[in-house]
Amino acid sequence: MPGTKPYFSTDFTLGILGGGQLGKMLLYKTRQWDIATKVLDPSGAAPARLACNQFQQGDLMDYDTVMDFGRDVDVLTIEIENVNVSALEDLEDQGVRVYPPPAMLRTIQNKASQKLFYTDKGIPTAPFTRFAYTSEITDSLKNGGLSLPFVWKSARFGYDGQGVKIVREAADLQGLPNVECIAENLVDFATELAVIVARNPDGEVVTYPVVEMEFHPEANQVEYVLCPARIPDKLAGKAREIALKAASAYGAVGLLAVELFLTPGGDILVNEVAPRPHNSGHFSLEGSYTDQFEQHLRAILNLPLGSTDNKVATVMVNLVGEADHRGPVSYEGIGDILAMPGVSPHIYGKKETRPFRKMGHVTIADASLEKARETAAKVKARIRVQSKTKEA
Amino acid sequence: MPGTKPYFSTDFTLGILGGGQLGKMLLYKTRQWDIATKVLDPSGAAPARLACNQFQQGDLMDYDTVMDFGRDVDVLTIEIENVNVSALEDLEDQGVRVYPPPAMLRTIQNKASQKLFYTDKGIPTAPFTRFAYTSEITDSLKNGGLSLPFVWKSARFGYDGQGVKIVREAADLQGLPNVECIAENLVDFATELAVIVARNPDGEVVTYPVVEMEFHPEANQVEYVLCPARIPDKLAGKAREIALKAASAYGAVGLLAVELFLTPGGDILVNEVAPRPHNSGHFSLEGSYTDQFEQHLRAILNLPLGSTDNKVATVMVNLVGEADHRGPVSYEGIGDILAMPGVSPHIYGKKETRPFRKMGHVTIADASLEKARETAAKVKARIRVQSKTKEA
Repeated sequence: MPGTKPYFSTDFTLGILGGGQLGKMLLYKTRQWDIATKVLDPSGAAPARLACNQFQQGDLMDYDTVMDFGRDVDVLTIEIENVNVSALEDLEDQGVRVYPPPAMLRTIQNKASQKLFYTDKGIPTAPFTRFAYTSEITDSLKNGGLSLPFVWKSARFGYDGQGVKIVREAADLQGLPNVECIAENLVDFATELAVIVARNPDGEVVTYPVVEMEFHPEANQVEYVLCPARIPDKLAGKAREIALKAASAYGAVGLLAVELFLTPGGDILVNEVAPRPHNSGHFSLEGSYTDQFEQHLRAILNLPLGSTDNKVATVMVNLVGEADHRGPVSYEGIGDILAMPGVSPHIYGKKETRPFRKMGHVTIADASLEKARETAAKVKARIRVQSKTKEA
Repeated sequence: MPGTKPYFSTDFTLGILGGGQLGKMLLYKTRQWDIATKVLDPSGAAPARLACNQFQQGDLMDYDTVMDFGRDVDVLTIEIENVNVSALEDLEDQGVRVYPPPAMLRTIQNKASQKLFYTDKGIPTAPFTRFAYTSEITDSLKNGGLSLPFVWKSARFGYDGQGVKIVREAADLQGLPNVECIAENLVDFATELAVIVARNPDGEVVTYPVVEMEFHPEANQVEYVLCPARIPDKLAGKAREIALKAASAYGAVGLLAVELFLTPGGDILVNEVAPRPHNSGHFSLEGSYTDQFEQHLRAILNLPLGSTDNKVATVMVNLVGEADHRGPVSYEGIGDILAMPGVSPHIYGKKETRPFRKMGHVTIADASLEKARETAAKVKARIRVQSKTKEA
């Protein structure tokens, strides 16, 4: 029973695996609720090293480190998928409440098993073929089992856009690592959407409004994340239903960020999921009655879930390091963007920038989505993540 | 020029005098913006001890302590008025940017000089008489210079409702400390309002929507803080103008919370001010495009000020310790209030409760002020700040 739990007391500790920007933002809420936290991260300069009650430096993939870290916490959660799942499974066996559930995390960590899961559960996803090694793809192409183009995805460690390549001709396979992988049908001209779902151990579940990723017309890179998505209500409802179905099938606890493709024909396909706070949910800090970090806390502490309604519309812009800058970061134009209406910068606190490194994000909130989108374009044009020492 | 300032870099440190709940909430934003902070507080268990980059334990009223603390920061601010102002003045002379300006803080710290300031500047305030000692009041009553009833206020250290007494008959003066004080005309049946003003060193200034304090019909204690206030637009405009006038007269930098009386005749009088984030501005965390803590940062860093518009309506309820509870705190009913729509609890992180101690607050956000007010009543009825060890 929620009211009787000792979360809001000194007796309780929440453990967080990973101390990056997501962990840092989760700590805004643990501070607001005065929930004691312990964070494990390999970097001594991790953004979440402040604001937690205890910070521990250590390898998230090391079994013993994770076991030692997790043994004395009441609830253990993650802000990154690449953690030692065997340790999580053993901690769960020892009575630690681990959310997301380790079994779910194991399925998600491997893109092949994640895709098979959708097929098994009747959750729409792009057709794919699984390969034990990339080298097997060449044979499959020759004998007609597979046709071009397709998307090659490494089954493991695909986090953060690495390990994905569009293969339009056989030569594109050259240089790819010879690992377990999938070849997925290329869903062309799709609109990319995302839905954040939250579910607590009691099975209470909510979905956030659908967000839309707007791509740069030439660079093929997400430029803006808009909430709500500019799609018909019926499609939005369908997207939320599919996300809900995925979360329930997984038995998710905590957040599940579900990335979706909307095909030109109106089909909605699950691309992939992340069982944690997600970039596509950052809008909620300014836009929602309950932001994704608070919702994650509510869910993993088995508290009642909060309203996912929007207070206002939002457009989110990622702040990534300029292509030719590397070294101590400086943010050019912050003063100027702060003069624009409804602008909230989030600076993650990474001390060094690298080309395309995610250094922060800016949310633009406005009663009108259209106006927020206009301001977002101005923000994007003005802000630069640079280094004093520009690369040659 | 805002864009050229090094606030968003490792070269900059913001010093904060006081590490209570206001300092703690200010740190939500310094973390979001990755601004390095140093906090001074007499208590080693201060709520803001986490989330700052450096925490120092020390006496805020001690000249040397404040001088040593402030010498190496770039900007120095406060979250409590009772600090050594002489040290702030000397730090300012040495080139530290101190906001609020020490001269203003000196005027505000003494309620007699604060009241004289309003009279001098033509800012409406309740008529009053200044006394060097409380004992002089008796003579003044005898010779007809003063008439009953009136409000006795100690000139110094009036922070947090202490040092104020309504004197309805001469006998009420008994037991009051014999100190510098004022006797102020009692403004009866007034509605209490407040306006948060923000001003930066360049003189840019904004006001927040007027909030209304709703009192418990019997207990004469603020029960709810509503934003926006349920008063006609014309009166709200007048209240914002008066608050603006006060901030400009003071040459305020940072926030100025202006507490006002609205008399039954429609006059608006300044009661008192606080040159810092304020309880009456907590609504802004959930209600405003720019919350008061971010606005304070923007102002003291001479950045452009943010929009003060409401996203939604809010009602704020303070969480104070139950009358008969003292000791390690426990929050009864948190789980239940989290099931209500738009509810955001803020737990300050004080480990011990005492009768009427401010332990946190709850904001209820809703598109409809009326609905927020209904939910607030349910929150108020459900939540209890208790101690496991109840007093006899």
